[in-house]
Amino acid sequence: MRDAYFDQLDTIVDDLVTMTHEVQEAVSLATQALLTADAEIAEKVISDDAAIDEARERVEAKSFELLALQQPVASDLRMLVAALRMVADLERMGDLSVHVAKVARLRVPQAAVPQEMVPTIERMAQVAEKMVGTVAGIIADRDVDGARKLEEDDEEMDQLRRSSFRLMLSDSWSHGVEPAVDIALLGRYYERIADHAVSLARRVVYLVTGETVTATPDV
Amino acid sequence: MRDAYFDQLDTIVDDLVTMTHEVQEAVSLATQALLTADAEIAEKVISDDAAIDEARERVEAKSFELLALQQPVASDLRMLVAALRMVADLERMGDLSVHVAKVARLRVPQAAVPQEMVPTIERMAQVAEKMVGTVAGIIADRDVDGARKLEEDDEEMDQLRRSSFRLMLSDSWSHGVEPAVDIALLGRYYERIADHAVSLARRVVYLVTGETVTATPDV
Repeated sequence: MRDAYFDQLDTIVDDLVTMTHEVQEAVSLATQALLTADAEIAEKVISDDAAIDEARERVEAKSFELLALQQPVASDLRMLVAALRMVADLERMGDLSVHVAKVARLRVPQAAVPQEMVPTIERMAQVAEKMVGTVAGIIADRDVDGARKLEEDDEEMDQLRRSSFRLMLSDSWSHGVEPAVDIALLGRYYERIADHAVSLARRVVYLVTGETVTATPDV
Repeated sequence: MRDAYFDQLDTIVDDLVTMTHEVQEAVSLATQALLTADAEIAEKVISDDAAIDEARERVEAKSFELLALQQPVASDLRMLVAALRMVADLERMGDLSVHVAKVARLRVPQAAVPQEMVPTIERMAQVAEKMVGTVAGIIADRDVDGARKLEEDDEEMDQLRRSSFRLMLSDSWSHGVEPAVDIALLGRYYERIADHAVSLARRVVYLVTGETVTATPDV
């Protein structure tokens, strides 16, 4: 019975790592849909999100069952509570990828992002995707040092967001309101994906060290 | 000992209700700061957010302690897990109010919202604030019917958001890029506040009926 219990704890970590990879794929494909104005890829991101939602439900059900039946204490309890929070982060990251894909789909056959803004958005997407990839390893290896380093990537994201605003609000911006609104929202989506990656990493720090990190990274 | 335990469960519900009222106040003041271009009120929203963050930590610590020491089962366990999620929603709603306040502060002494857009944004804010107020009652009274009705308010929010886009993207929009970007983001913040209100209401439904509602309302 106890062995089955530890096996189930392990499968929860495996599920979280798998979900993180699925989210990374969603971020990557959504960006591809956005930058190549590809409606088919956008549709794939949107429909694949159901799998991430289902994974969330599965991990929640498993965690809740273990909480109810095994009445874990100390580090196991901490791990299950962290898992419940981490799946919530991961599900949101999937939703945010869907938002990016929907902006892409809305503008097809046009590209939503004007050429001069592509390098900034592309870099935002790369930073977000890299952060999500890094987080998968951080969760799998309980890598506290890696988790702490992730905050640096988040700083680059903030800088990219600011530079996108500078570009849109400069006198030389010739693309009008619609792409500006799209870019403001896209920037927000990528920034939130990055925030959730930081939040996931902080939960790993909490799991390993018991150190709580207070607020969400966004404020 | 068991009495103290039930008292503690009760105080968690009280804390959630108090936090919800604090969030309602934050939404209300942030909107006031936005529509009257009042930097002082904006600052108050930003600094008062620390109290919401602290309340979150307090409820988390209490819930975790009860989980660890009392090893609750069935409905008490459900209630503690729900409380952990609800404080996360409430903290985000506080953060989103801060975002609204920061847009207001950024444009002072100008108003961020052009006159022709004021009715739409004002109505969004009213809907969001009303939803937060309703949720406080739903949590206090475990009001499942009220929780189900809240989704209707959320539909009005979606409509308002769409009409704000129509206005900004019409040929008659004469305010340029900056207010459009502000409004796109403000709309997103109010919409997310409403989403979190729906999410809180759904957790009450779950608490009372055991019915899970799958994804977050945003996707």
